[in-house]
Amino acid sequence: MSSMIQRFWLNFLNNTRVFKFTNIYKTADIGNNCVIGSYTEIGDKVKIGDNCKIQAKVFIPKGVTIGNNVFIGPCVKFTNDKYPKATGDWKVWETVVEDGASIGAGATIICGVTIRKNSMIGAGAVVTKDVPEGCMVVGVPAVQVDNNWGSL
Amino acid sequence: MSSMIQRFWLNFLNNTRVFKFTNIYKTADIGNNCVIGSYTEIGDKVKIGDNCKIQAKVFIPKGVTIGNNVFIGPCVKFTNDKYPKATGDWKVWETVVEDGASIGAGATIICGVTIRKNSMIGAGAVVTKDVPEGCMVVGVPAVQVDNNWGSL
Amino acid sequence: MSSMIQRFWLNFLNNTRVFKFTNIYKTADIGNNCVIGSYTEIGDKVKIGDNCKIQAKVFIPKGVTIGNNVFIGPCVKFTNDKYPKATGDWKVWETVVEDGASIGAGATIICGVTIRKNSMIGAGAVVTKDVPEGCMVVGVPAVQVDNNWGSL
Repeated sequence: MSSMIQRFWLNFLNNTRVFKFTNIYKTADIGNNCVIGSYTEIGDKVKIGDNCKIQAKVFIPKGVTIGNNVFIGPCVKFTNDKYPKATGDWKVWETVVEDGASIGAGATIICGVTIRKNSMIGAGAVVTKDVPEGCMVVGVPAVQVDNNWGSL
Repeated sequence: MSSMIQRFWLNFLNNTRVFKFTNIYKTADIGNNCVIGSYTEIGDKVKIGDNCKIQAKVFIPKGVTIGNNVFIGPCVKFTNDKYPKATGDWKVWETVVEDGASIGAGATIICGVTIRKNSMIGAGAVVTKDVPEGCMVVGVPAVQVDNNWGSL
Repeated sequence: MSSMIQRFWLNFLNNTRVFKFTNIYKTADIGNNCVIGSYTEIGDKVKIGDNCKIQAKVFIPKGVTIGNNVFIGPCVKFTNDKYPKATGDWKVWETVVEDGASIGAGATIICGVTIRKNSMIGAGAVVTKDVPEGCMVVGVPAVQVDNNWGSL
């Protein structure tokens, strides 16, 4: 299926708007009423819920599951291999982003973590462990600065 | 207007060289003698002055204004929403980069700041507040390390 | 040579798999059995060895030399100008990545450094100086946290 036909069907069937130069695997499962920015890659078997806003240049590989109402800023990258090497076997680590979370521009999410409901990841943060519900984390590595973000 | 025709006209009229896979909104206002690297997205109503060198994979959304003689390194991303969420209303925050500033590779610029003349943003920095004229800032969040960059 | 023909020849002659939306300069020298992810740009005269896995959205400009069995994560960017400005002359700084090194997602490599054999750069790190053989570095700027990575 060509990229253009895929964009048409996602729009027609799911009311999901897909911008230019995206690379969405046919095996990715994308919900309704989403926006997928330009240059964004969504890999094999990635699952994305409804009403998500995924900005430009985002990288989401196999192993990532995203809930509903999630915001993912431009240039955010997920990973799926904790100890990457060019050669040899490897396994996919799972990462979960729960409903209502927001991930700021350029953040890096190390695989194996769960980002809980209504949390906020600051722009440029490197997330190395689970993020509790409703909390904000910032920095490299990301540390908690606010436990009341979800109620803003 | 197709991307290829737009590239031709920017080159012909403005002597601005645009590389492959760019996504430049027709409503963006780009000056003369600029270079725009591949995969770079320049959004709605973005204003860019003359003699700017904008490298590959840069993301510049609506709300950003860039002066003359500005260098923007590869993979730099600007933002325009301070408290992003997937749903609900939001407003565009303005960001300004003044003449002669240089922004290093992979830096993230949080919206609402002014980067003043002849300043330097270190590679990978996350800029969260205004950068004074002629200063260098580095780190996450970016802090000032040099107040004499502009005279180098 | 169009991008599609180039991808075919790399695959046919070198057994190197090149994904979509790549921008590989004809003057780049790429080895055998490599993988080059989507949206990756490999610039003029870049040299890459055999069995390298280069993920999506990587930026490798002129001046970078990469050995064999190197892993480069998604959204990693290299640079080649230490004091970038929009105008005036500049020189290319050289950067070397030796055999067996791994560079985590989103890392930024400041030009002029050597990343030695079997070292590991953490995701999101900003590398500002040489990385010793077999060591792991993380953070902004990157500091050493482990001198035994290579034997994992």
